[in-house]
Amino acid sequence: MKQVLKLTLEDTKKMMDGAINKAIELGIDMDIAIVDDGGHLMLFTRMDNAKITSINVSIDKAFTAAAARKATLDYGKSVINHGPAFGIQTSHQGRFCVVGGGLPLFVDGQIVGGIGCSSGSSDQDIVVSQAGIDAILSVK
Amino acid sequence: MKQVLKLTLEDTKKMMDGAINKAIELGIDMDIAIVDDGGHLMLFTRMDNAKITSINVSIDKAFTAAAARKATLDYGKSVINHGPAFGIQTSHQGRFCVVGGGLPLFVDGQIVGGIGCSSGSSDQDIVVSQAGIDAILSVK
Amino acid sequence: MKQVLKLTLEDTKKMMDGAINKAIELGIDMDIAIVDDGGHLMLFTRMDNAKITSINVSIDKAFTAAAARKATLDYGKSVINHGPAFGIQTSHQGRFCVVGGGLPLFVDGQIVGGIGCSSGSSDQDIVVSQAGIDAILSVK
Amino acid sequence: MKQVLKLTLEDTKKMMDGAINKAIELGIDMDIAIVDDGGHLMLFTRMDNAKITSINVSIDKAFTAAAARKATLDYGKSVINHGPAFGIQTSHQGRFCVVGGGLPLFVDGQIVGGIGCSSGSSDQDIVVSQAGIDAILSVK
Repeated sequence: MKQVLKLTLEDTKKMMDGAINKAIELGIDMDIAIVDDGGHLMLFTRMDNAKITSINVSIDKAFTAAAARKATLDYGKSVINHGPAFGIQTSHQGRFCVVGGGLPLFVDGQIVGGIGCSSGSSDQDIVVSQAGIDAILSVK
Repeated sequence: MKQVLKLTLEDTKKMMDGAINKAIELGIDMDIAIVDDGGHLMLFTRMDNAKITSINVSIDKAFTAAAARKATLDYGKSVINHGPAFGIQTSHQGRFCVVGGGLPLFVDGQIVGGIGCSSGSSDQDIVVSQAGIDAILSVK
Repeated sequence: MKQVLKLTLEDTKKMMDGAINKAIELGIDMDIAIVDDGGHLMLFTRMDNAKITSINVSIDKAFTAAAARKATLDYGKSVINHGPAFGIQTSHQGRFCVVGGGLPLFVDGQIVGGIGCSSGSSDQDIVVSQAGIDAILSVK
Repeated sequence: MKQVLKLTLEDTKKMMDGAINKAIELGIDMDIAIVDDGGHLMLFTRMDNAKITSINVSIDKAFTAAAARKATLDYGKSVINHGPAFGIQTSHQGRFCVVGGGLPLFVDGQIVGGIGCSSGSSDQDIVVSQAGIDAILSVK
C-alpha cells in the first residue's frame, strides 16, 4: 500500500469560494463542481442564473479533468479537427468532456481532484476553474 | 402565465446548513443534494466519510421527491409488497428512487424543490432531509 | 488535506492470487474483480469457464462493496422481501449489486477497495472474495 | 458446427506480460484490457499511475478491435474528416472506440480476441498493444 493525499470537505469549500468569487467578478453565474481523485463529486454549487445543462457539463468536466489527469481543453485540442484523440469524447456514455473548463488538481505531482465550471464561454469557464485551483494551492 | 416561487442559492444554503448540522448531531457523514422544482441539482455536499454510492442516491432521492412531488418513502410504500406503483422504481434509468430520504419542498402548496440525503439508515436519511426542509421553512 | 492508504498493483495481485487459489480449491471457474476506494477497476481475471454475464456482475459487486462500504449480501438482506433499502438496486444504472459476493476491504478502519466474484452460488462467491481479502490482510 | 480456437487464461497472461513489459520499457503506466472473440473482458490490469478514464477506454478499444475485427485506428481513419464510417463512434452507447490502441488478434485468419491499451499517446498505446499481440503469436 502507499500513502496518498485526499481532499477534505474543508479543502473543497476553499476551492468553491475561490471559484464563486471569480465568477461574481466576471459577472457570470456558473455551475461549479469539485471532485476527488476518482472523479466522484464532492461539492457542487449552481449560482442563481447558471444553466440547467451546465450542471452535468460542469460535473463531467471535473470528472474528466481528475480522472484523465489533464485539462479538458487539452483533450479538446486533440479531438477537434479530427486529431489523434478524436472519438474519446463519446466514451463513458458521453461523460468524457473535451470542452474547456475542467482542470485537474495536482499536489506534489500527484492527482488529488478536479474542478469543472460551465455556463460562460470556454475561456471564462477556465478562468473560474483556475481561481478554484489557485484558492487551494495558495493555502498549502 | 403565472407567478411562481423559485429557490435561490441563498435558500439552498440554509437548507444545506440545516441538514449538515443534523447529520453532525447524529454523528453520520452524509451526501446531501438539493434540487429545484424541475428536479435539477442546485447544491451538493459530500461530508468527509459519506459513501461514494450515496452521491447518486442522494441526488436521485432529491430528484424523485421534487419531480414526483412526494416523499420517496411514500413511493416506496406503494412499491413494496408489489403495491400499485410497483415497477416505477426502474423508470428514468433507475433514477426514480423509492428509498426513504428524499423529501419535496412545498411552499404555499406549490412545489419549489426537494432534498435528498444518503449514507445512514433510511430513517436517519429522512431526519436529516427534514432538518433541511425545516431550516428553510422556519425563515419564511 | 488528509493522508490515506491506496492499494498498489502488487497488493491487488496478492488478493487475486488468494481468490483464484480458493476458486481452484472449490473447483469453480470465476470472474474476479478488484477495485480501488473509488470503486474503479484495478485488476480483473476471467477463469477459463467463468460466465460471460459474471464479468459485469463481479465488477459491479466490487464497485458496490467498495463505494457503499458494505458487503453486497448485507445490502441484499435490506432489499429482499421489500426491506428498507428496496429500490437501491436500480441506482447507478443498475450497477448497485445486492447479490452476495462483493466485499469491502478496510484497513485501519478506512476503506481502501473491494473485491467481487461471480459464477458460483452466492455462498461460493463470498468464500472466494473472502480469500482475496484474507490474502492481503495477512501480509500487512 | 465448426472447430474454432479460443484464448485461454494462460494465453491472455502471456499477452498481458508482453504489454506490461513494453509499457515499463516506455516508462508509462497503462490500463490494459484483453477480450475474447465476443469482445468480452478476459483480463485487465491497471498499472499504478494509469488514468481512471483509461479503464473504460482500454476495455472499449479491446472490445471494438475484437468485435469489429479491425484496429481501432483503422476505424478512426474512416471516421475522421467525415469519412464513410463517420457516426459509428457513437454506437454501442459510445463504446465503439475509434482512437488508436485497440488491436484484433487473428490466428490462422480467424478472430480470437483483442487487446486495448490506454493512458499514453495513441502511438504509445498501439505499441504496447502490439507487444501484447506479439507475445502470444511468438509462442504459437
